[in-house]
Amino acid sequence: MTAPEPFTTSDYAARMARVATDAAAAGLAGVIVTPGPDLVWLTGYQPTAITERLTALVVSATAEPALLVPTLERPDAEAAAGAAAVRMVDWTDGVDPYAAAAPLVSPGGTFGISDNAWAMHLLGLEGALPGTRYRALTQALPMMRAVKDADELVRLEAAGAAADATYLEIVQVRFAGRRETEVAADLAELLRRHGHEQVDFTVVGSGPNGANPHHEAGERTIQDGDAVVLDFGGLKYGYGSDTTRTVSVGEPSAELREVHAIVRAAQQAGVDAVRPGVSCQEVDRAARRVITEAGYGERFIHRTGHGIGVTTHEPPYMIEGEEQPLVPGMCFSVEPGIYLTGRFGVRIEDIVTVTEDGGRRFNNTDHGIAVVA
Amino acid sequence: MTAPEPFTTSDYAARMARVATDAAAAGLAGVIVTPGPDLVWLTGYQPTAITERLTALVVSATAEPALLVPTLERPDAEAAAGAAAVRMVDWTDGVDPYAAAAPLVSPGGTFGISDNAWAMHLLGLEGALPGTRYRALTQALPMMRAVKDADELVRLEAAGAAADATYLEIVQVRFAGRRETEVAADLAELLRRHGHEQVDFTVVGSGPNGANPHHEAGERTIQDGDAVVLDFGGLKYGYGSDTTRTVSVGEPSAELREVHAIVRAAQQAGVDAVRPGVSCQEVDRAARRVITEAGYGERFIHRTGHGIGVTTHEPPYMIEGEEQPLVPGMCFSVEPGIYLTGRFGVRIEDIVTVTEDGGRRFNNTDHGIAVVA
Repeated sequence: MTAPEPFTTSDYAARMARVATDAAAAGLAGVIVTPGPDLVWLTGYQPTAITERLTALVVSATAEPALLVPTLERPDAEAAAGAAAVRMVDWTDGVDPYAAAAPLVSPGGTFGISDNAWAMHLLGLEGALPGTRYRALTQALPMMRAVKDADELVRLEAAGAAADATYLEIVQVRFAGRRETEVAADLAELLRRHGHEQVDFTVVGSGPNGANPHHEAGERTIQDGDAVVLDFGGLKYGYGSDTTRTVSVGEPSAELREVHAIVRAAQQAGVDAVRPGVSCQEVDRAARRVITEAGYGERFIHRTGHGIGVTTHEPPYMIEGEEQPLVPGMCFSVEPGIYLTGRFGVRIEDIVTVTEDGGRRFNNTDHGIAVVA
Repeated sequence: MTAPEPFTTSDYAARMARVATDAAAAGLAGVIVTPGPDLVWLTGYQPTAITERLTALVVSATAEPALLVPTLERPDAEAAAGAAAVRMVDWTDGVDPYAAAAPLVSPGGTFGISDNAWAMHLLGLEGALPGTRYRALTQALPMMRAVKDADELVRLEAAGAAADATYLEIVQVRFAGRRETEVAADLAELLRRHGHEQVDFTVVGSGPNGANPHHEAGERTIQDGDAVVLDFGGLKYGYGSDTTRTVSVGEPSAELREVHAIVRAAQQAGVDAVRPGVSCQEVDRAARRVITEAGYGERFIHRTGHGIGVTTHEPPYMIEGEEQPLVPGMCFSVEPGIYLTGRFGVRIEDIVTVTEDGGRRFNNTDHGIAVVA
């Protein structure tokens, strides 16, 4: 595909207006957003570095959006597409940034604040505005970025296709006798070659390392007969990819086939459970039930999935206790696994979007065990 | 130089013990440290990704250090050199991580918390421990990482030398007719070739872009006659480099020579002010005085410097109002500048360490205007 058109000032203005409305409906006085994915999504502005200097966007139903920036970063902020939709205010080194922020925040209400806002900044705001209260945005307005519009879905689908193209090439490379880190470097190069501007993770978990779901890639030399968990993704056109397949170096053992078949069935059950109105925890339960009934329940030691968008890890979470109903446009991973400590692991992961008709995968490579050399 | 020996468990244990003592002396019940530079410095542990899952180290004078980690990241955490010096506690998806953290935090006291801890986690802790109070670590214990020991100084000196080697090569490349981003790519490659494992910034501010002190590098084609601000650094052996020189493409104009001479004198005055017991703000004042007396005071729109260590940006800050006295082993930048909006900028920056005899530079390339092609 050709690159999608960049988001415009009016796209960002529309997102800010929607957040202002949603925040009011959730009983919030507004939201305070700091550099990172929330700010990128609302304004297109990504400071060149996230530093200790306070940058904060305040959005509420009662005032126009205001962006507080350090004076020396103002030219960069003004270059963002969303800048024309906000009132920009700057503060200069030596001034108290929280005093500068205070007039932008209506006193006495409760504000949602970016999860990843620095504790230092929250404490500063608490000091400057003693009557104002704060809640983490993923608790106060968890679905703020969760429902993707058509232009976002195009990007997520493109990222998924690029990850699939990466997988189709990685199974052609040599595994046996090479280190995990070498295969991981191949994955990173392929992700970039297929248009990712950012590589977030390239997990190569061979043999016993595959039994640690967050093992990245190490110095272990991959052996003939290993199961290898490949979990990789990043950002393309600013939106995330994330897919996992488990391959076998040479013919898979009977045990690997059996465990893999269980995970595959669990993953399918998770995807099959996706439809509007079903709660997130039902997706987790559907996948988990298959693994539990096969006797491996205690070996599935993480939640079934996480949302994806301008980050590769965000709400909604497919986890027991998450009662949020699915809404068309939500996008998230379905990635059950079984981890046999000291031996091997199996995980299968696709990004799925909710449509009126059910779940639609953005990853579509074969779910069987690929045999690699 | 050959690579320095890795820090050991006992190095990390010693740092934790020192922090426990310093925290108690500062009236704190302890410190809570989350992933990022504080955790790397105290334990050597850097999670493969910083996610919404709570990881927190609690250090206090009344209990052994405890590290709370998500279960699935425990194997990674246990591989860190500092892990053997902490009691490790894990929490599993589905459990309330703040309830898991609560027993590690003595109720009722005031804890210092990492500046960059997520607001979400601070709010979670505030909810789980209503009687406990928090202060940002750079306010509560600002000098926690500021005074470097001999093994750290070796690394910072090596990083500075590598940045200097980068500068000596970059002035040999072609500037005129190339884009800023191309020269920035050269800088990044040179930093890596000289041993940086991480490149943090490669500022190439040509002509009017140099007048924005936080301009990174853009699509502008560098012109003959431009002043170009080059500000670059990253991490080598885990410790930071950061140096700035302003070069001229072809012979510098009389005005550039004049402005450059003022900045050079200001930078020297800042370095000359460095000695034990002098306050940080005196370093800022010394540099600023030169620029103000030359009539450019309003064109020096940022503080004079920032500390450096496991990050390229940390306390102590050389800024008006910072009364912290300098202590031998502190390391920071001295980087005054003059910014003529729409025309050009000049900045000169070295990393300086405090010794008993005064300031010692870790950057030692020529301070004159290099003429590039």
